[in-house]
Amino acid sequence: MKRRGAEPLLVVSSLDMGCARRGSVSNIKTYSDYGLRELQRRHGPGRGWAEMVSTILAREGVRGNVALAGRTDILSATHLADLLRRNGFKVTGMAKPTFVDACRRRKDGWEIETIKRVGDKTVSVVQKLEKLLEESDVRTGKVVYEGKQLTTAVLRKHVMVWCSEAGLSLPEGFMLAAGAESSDPHAMAREDKPLTEGEPLLFDIYPADETGYRYDFTRTYCVGRAKPLLRKMFEDVAAAQKHAFDTINAGTRCETPFIEVCRFFRRRRWPTLLDRDVKDKGFIHGLGHGVGLTIGEEPYLTRFSTTPLSSGEVVTVEPGLYVPGFGGVRLEDVVVVDGGKAVVLAEHRKVLEL
Amino acid sequence: MKRRGAEPLLVVSSLDMGCARRGSVSNIKTYSDYGLRELQRRHGPGRGWAEMVSTILAREGVRGNVALAGRTDILSATHLADLLRRNGFKVTGMAKPTFVDACRRRKDGWEIETIKRVGDKTVSVVQKLEKLLEESDVRTGKVVYEGKQLTTAVLRKHVMVWCSEAGLSLPEGFMLAAGAESSDPHAMAREDKPLTEGEPLLFDIYPADETGYRYDFTRTYCVGRAKPLLRKMFEDVAAAQKHAFDTINAGTRCETPFIEVCRFFRRRRWPTLLDRDVKDKGFIHGLGHGVGLTIGEEPYLTRFSTTPLSSGEVVTVEPGLYVPGFGGVRLEDVVVVDGGKAVVLAEHRKVLEL
Repeated sequence: MKRRGAEPLLVVSSLDMGCARRGSVSNIKTYSDYGLRELQRRHGPGRGWAEMVSTILAREGVRGNVALAGRTDILSATHLADLLRRNGFKVTGMAKPTFVDACRRRKDGWEIETIKRVGDKTVSVVQKLEKLLEESDVRTGKVVYEGKQLTTAVLRKHVMVWCSEAGLSLPEGFMLAAGAESSDPHAMAREDKPLTEGEPLLFDIYPADETGYRYDFTRTYCVGRAKPLLRKMFEDVAAAQKHAFDTINAGTRCETPFIEVCRFFRRRRWPTLLDRDVKDKGFIHGLGHGVGLTIGEEPYLTRFSTTPLSSGEVVTVEPGLYVPGFGGVRLEDVVVVDGGKAVVLAEHRKVLEL
Repeated sequence: MKRRGAEPLLVVSSLDMGCARRGSVSNIKTYSDYGLRELQRRHGPGRGWAEMVSTILAREGVRGNVALAGRTDILSATHLADLLRRNGFKVTGMAKPTFVDACRRRKDGWEIETIKRVGDKTVSVVQKLEKLLEESDVRTGKVVYEGKQLTTAVLRKHVMVWCSEAGLSLPEGFMLAAGAESSDPHAMAREDKPLTEGEPLLFDIYPADETGYRYDFTRTYCVGRAKPLLRKMFEDVAAAQKHAFDTINAGTRCETPFIEVCRFFRRRRWPTLLDRDVKDKGFIHGLGHGVGLTIGEEPYLTRFSTTPLSSGEVVTVEPGLYVPGFGGVRLEDVVVVDGGKAVVLAEHRKVLEL
């Protein structure tokens, strides 16, 4: 519980006391300090817990607006809000972005260093994948590594092991899609697809290290000679990303780089989300999102995101082009807004053919 | 959206159409079918999204009670509930366990098979850890493997790599705590602690495979000869778990096995949560929880959990004993309630000294 101008209060299960003490809040109490056991005996586990929250607010003399923050089950959150209101508290909701989102938006120096460190580890994994692909051969159109045809399942297992070795976890998996599968930007490709020459291989990885901070990184490759359409898509996406970097600086509205990239693609005759009839071909997602303890937070580089960017904000810049039945190309780096410009946190080359 | 007696409706971003089509819902629409773009232009991103939900309910002719299910940010969920109510919908909350929790409680045959398969993979990782510990030596009290003193950080890296190789991910990490660190049942031990002879090494692992289903497994080991207190704790916990298995069967109230285990420990002179003055010594947590797509769901084998267990429910059985400053012992297996008895899904030996 955080009240304006006052020290925070943390209430935990006695089981979590050890963990809680390692944090930065010094005023820590336990559920039993607020009579959880008796409340649960009387009302059952869920209602009892909600009554305990009400007891905390009452005992701490809370009067003004109460905002319930954090993530939980919506049904029981609605129950909690209603119960608190019945008990006389002024519970207020807030559309996204909420004030909590706003607090987490700008990163401090330690956070930026931490995200950069996760980025460096991520790039070390990416380099291992690139090396393996470079050491592969093409034989009659098939991609072969150490005498066997390379498949996406083989690569996925390598990536998992390399992440473990680098001290990275994959809390939401990662995406490694070959060929036409890569044309769906949100598909968690799971097929075991053999790699063939000149087809796109889209690799999007978003790991965490032991701090919980994340990185988010995408490259698109092919082994051997790229098909002409793939080469054209890659060049357009790389140029669009460069253009995006130039449009990002403190003071710019979040939607501006997105709109700029849409216009850039439009000049190269690709459909974008600015078109009314866009479907699954062209540039069909946002340009980027904040990165921190999550890979989906403020600021969003999307349409109708009208707040200005400011220094210390960390966002992905990830233009992509998709052609159903053929494949997709996406390039993604994480930048920190540093006054007048976007600075990539973990630099890495962009190369299509390996 | 699911209405009683009607086919479900799934509304997704057009970006997620490919993913959505792979699921079991056939009636799929997109945000743009309900005018999201125009609503966001008019009201901003968050409010616009909430107005779209309201539009969906209105257009589908929803009249009765509306329950918002799933997990999200509480602040914006409260905003959504309030907005829908202002627009005339009857949004209801529900204390935990909600009806969604109730739906997910009993597992079908496919789910049980899947959880068992994750369990078998988990046990394969556990066996590798046991083998490494067995191949270690004790030299003047220190645990040595391949000529070097073994530490928890070395073991943690091995476990991550073995999980990757087994096709398991670790969405919430895992716990590997040595010595006194193991006396905190919820501590995400992160220190790099050298292993010494006879001290507890507590290993709690809760991976997922590519289906998203989980397993949850704990063993406690020591290398070399166990200290007498550790041996006594291990024997009491192993006997308590056996006793717990015997008390679990369809029809039993969820809290009964927990209370039985508390009484069992009490007879062996350990403090438990049944004591008013229990702190951080003894049996200080619940006996178990449901396992499925999460490792914290119904049914809970804890106090005031009064619903009856029934066939097809999958729960952990994880008694533990903790002595601050010394260490902890916990043994955990996952069982399915199969009529008259508890059947362990992935059997594995229980041995203290390796």
